Amino acid sequence: MSDAVKLNYANSLTEFVGDQGITIEELKALQQKISKAHESIHRQKKEGKLGFMELPYKIEAAKKIKAAAKKAAPKFENFVVIGIGGSALGNIALQQALRHPYWNLLEKKGRKGFLKLFVPDNVDPDFISGLTDVIDPKKTLFNVISKSGSTAECLANYFILKKILQKKVGKKYNEHILVTTDAAKGYLREAVVKENLVSFEVPSNVGGRFSVMTPVGLLSAAFTGIDIEKLLIGAQQMDNRCFNDDIMQNPAALYAAIQYLFYWKKRPLSVMMPYSNALYGVADWYRQLWAESLGKKTDRNGDAVFVGPTPIKALGATDQHSQVQLYIEGPQDKVITFLSVEKFGKTVKVPAYDKHYLGGRSLNELLKAEEKATRLALTKEGRPNLTISLPEVTPEAMGQLLYMLELATAYAGELFDINAFDQPGVELGKQLTYALMGRAGYEDKKSELETELAKSEKQDYTA
Amino acid sequence: MSDAVKLNYANSLTEFVGDQGITIEELKALQQKISKAHESIHRQKKEGKLGFMELPYKIEAAKKIKAAAKKAAPKFENFVVIGIGGSALGNIALQQALRHPYWNLLEKKGRKGFLKLFVPDNVDPDFISGLTDVIDPKKTLFNVISKSGSTAECLANYFILKKILQKKVGKKYNEHILVTTDAAKGYLREAVVKENLVSFEVPSNVGGRFSVMTPVGLLSAAFTGIDIEKLLIGAQQMDNRCFNDDIMQNPAALYAAIQYLFYWKKRPLSVMMPYSNALYGVADWYRQLWAESLGKKTDRNGDAVFVGPTPIKALGATDQHSQVQLYIEGPQDKVITFLSVEKFGKTVKVPAYDKHYLGGRSLNELLKAEEKATRLALTKEGRPNLTISLPEVTPEAMGQLLYMLELATAYAGELFDINAFDQPGVELGKQLTYALMGRAGYEDKKSELETELAKSEKQDYTA
Repeated sequence: MSDAVKLNYANSLTEFVGDQGITIEELKALQQKISKAHESIHRQKKEGKLGFMELPYKIEAAKKIKAAAKKAAPKFENFVVIGIGGSALGNIALQQALRHPYWNLLEKKGRKGFLKLFVPDNVDPDFISGLTDVIDPKKTLFNVISKSGSTAECLANYFILKKILQKKVGKKYNEHILVTTDAAKGYLREAVVKENLVSFEVPSNVGGRFSVMTPVGLLSAAFTGIDIEKLLIGAQQMDNRCFNDDIMQNPAALYAAIQYLFYWKKRPLSVMMPYSNALYGVADWYRQLWAESLGKKTDRNGDAVFVGPTPIKALGATDQHSQVQLYIEGPQDKVITFLSVEKFGKTVKVPAYDKHYLGGRSLNELLKAEEKATRLALTKEGRPNLTISLPEVTPEAMGQLLYMLELATAYAGELFDINAFDQPGVELGKQLTYALMGRAGYEDKKSELETELAKSEKQDYTA
Repeated sequence: MSDAVKLNYANSLTEFVGDQGITIEELKALQQKISKAHESIHRQKKEGKLGFMELPYKIEAAKKIKAAAKKAAPKFENFVVIGIGGSALGNIALQQALRHPYWNLLEKKGRKGFLKLFVPDNVDPDFISGLTDVIDPKKTLFNVISKSGSTAECLANYFILKKILQKKVGKKYNEHILVTTDAAKGYLREAVVKENLVSFEVPSNVGGRFSVMTPVGLLSAAFTGIDIEKLLIGAQQMDNRCFNDDIMQNPAALYAAIQYLFYWKKRPLSVMMPYSNALYGVADWYRQLWAESLGKKTDRNGDAVFVGPTPIKALGATDQHSQVQLYIEGPQDKVITFLSVEKFGKTVKVPAYDKHYLGGRSLNELLKAEEKATRLALTKEGRPNLTISLPEVTPEAMGQLLYMLELATAYAGELFDINAFDQPGVELGKQLTYALMGRAGYEDKKSELETELAKSEKQDYTA
């Protein structure tokens, strides 16, 4: 397939990076583990546990969302996603990849009638207050997204924005709200029934960080004019390529295997570095996917393992002027994955001035030369690196890329022998937040916590 | 000083995090090294080698820039910084911290007549082409920034934007350009003379990543209405506090010492996690400062050491839904530095709905509770963390914070015994880029490089 997203791993091999690399033999030695992982994943899929693998085939649902968005868009100016983490990162990644880099500054015509997009994914008061300065609620559609229906950050922002909306448009406020949540449970689902809100479902077998191809990610994409059908078709293409359990043929399995090998060769830092501003959001989305799925205290036997690569985002060529010094000369603890774009939307020529060597060339050539130069420099210094290339940043290619990384996460979970689909480590923080916020049932803990906090906040330990 | 930026290190100590921590004794044992570092830094300062330490006192220059910006701003709508790395990250950090979160979407009145700011810090063709869709060159002031005057990315974008400007405004194009570069050398300095451009100087003894308080960072700040005098005054305040070489009293030295101790206790990952959207840009600025200064192959004796902590940016509360699972349960390889804001600009109340526990509270309380909960959860799990607190995000506090981190970098350089002020590792990549772009003098290398690249790009190593 000539328009396929591809993984090139040459520069991870000893042949190219010397003794810091891995070998084809080491990769092939993982074949058995990969076959087992493959079997396990497909068994779980059949058992209905891996809902994200069903999403590429929900074309009819995508068509409906696309049509509904096209119809409703002309009534509004802004689309606000009220979500956080898995209910925001995929939305941002699709938007950055597939829309104009200054989308919200374009006139309606430049947006072809589609909506501006805002994703206020924090409870910073100045950030939320700032949003209300630049949107007119009368012209705004709010998409509240929480799988559980009870995420504190999401609900706090929702309550604030709903109140403002009610003040402005009165009883018709519910025409400005789309709820994306569990089909049956949670505060938001109850609100849908009580207040007659339009709603969409997050399948119960799809975790937040795997939900970009559910209505969680598809609604905002459709309302900004992204062809979400093609996104799913791209994911299908990748799914097909990954039916093969041959480690050397299956890009998701191969990516997972290489990362896994390097992790145990003392390279726990997994840098993703797109040479494309459009793909920087993918690196951020990958940070959640990789960190939350693989950062685990216990393996599936319950033994303490404290594993997990640390995903890091960087941007080429920009971070050549920030991070590359460290990547080239610092500790041998990283594996770099470049995201490479073969063809950009525009070709931008550099005019000739003063016979300067850049004159007459294009930014396209310069960016590509910088990418190649950085890759080669790292390789020459014995720094392992991979390249995932996209023929062009299209919805299909994005579908392939995101699905490949999701599936790679599942393979990596199997290799590390951990549960890649839970996040037990954030529970304690949630409980403590509830206690500090005085939620019913947590009152007793509050004063104890405050005493504890006061101890460390003392001036004694402050300079 | 009640409005001081402070470093709390309680949760780095064994007393709070158990045996993963450090002890006061270990810190005090570094006193001699810190005294030596302090002496070395102040000696270099006297010798005129550490220009960044003189910047807080250049109040008169800042006053002039402030006045000039106030006078010129009404003639324009947009301010475009054409720079990359150290010529962009400080600008973005100041802007995010001290201006409205949706500044470029505000009407002129909301901006009090000051300019929108764009920092196109990459040579991505779609990114640059996109910029030209949303700015009118007639209403735009372009600030070209390159210390050397020859940075490829900067010049390529400059040539492109200059051509567009010339087409639109003809011979008066030079009234739309401000050049910030070396006082005497380089392509841009020559252009200043030849084309009669307004120019500003980057002192030769100030490196790019330490240049935020030179015209590099001050011009764009002033043109967006930031009080740059107060920024310098804040830096002065921090400089005064750091005259003291007592490790326990000098926040910059103490921060460096703690990071240094943890680095050698197998915690090479230094996460900076502001609980404030406004301060996220600071974490990005810090990434360059820390990575490029400390990521070094050789020490000052020329011995190979391959050192350098890897700085990582995260955002609270947002990354509780992305990275915190890994920080709590993953490998014990990180030290987290929270940036904590005591008072936000706005107080945003959550309205009461359905007797929900969040009703009647404020986002301010919620964000603070989440910060405290995350800090406590990490501490309970034996994960060392620090907190740098700002009373409020003001120009003074930003001056204190940025200067503290710059100075900490100098102390850390001394502790690691490396040169914190060069970046030899990026040279190879530059040479290779020149060769691939066919710059005069590099022609011979081009075909050799292309052969080399072709080897690794073969289909053999692709899935």
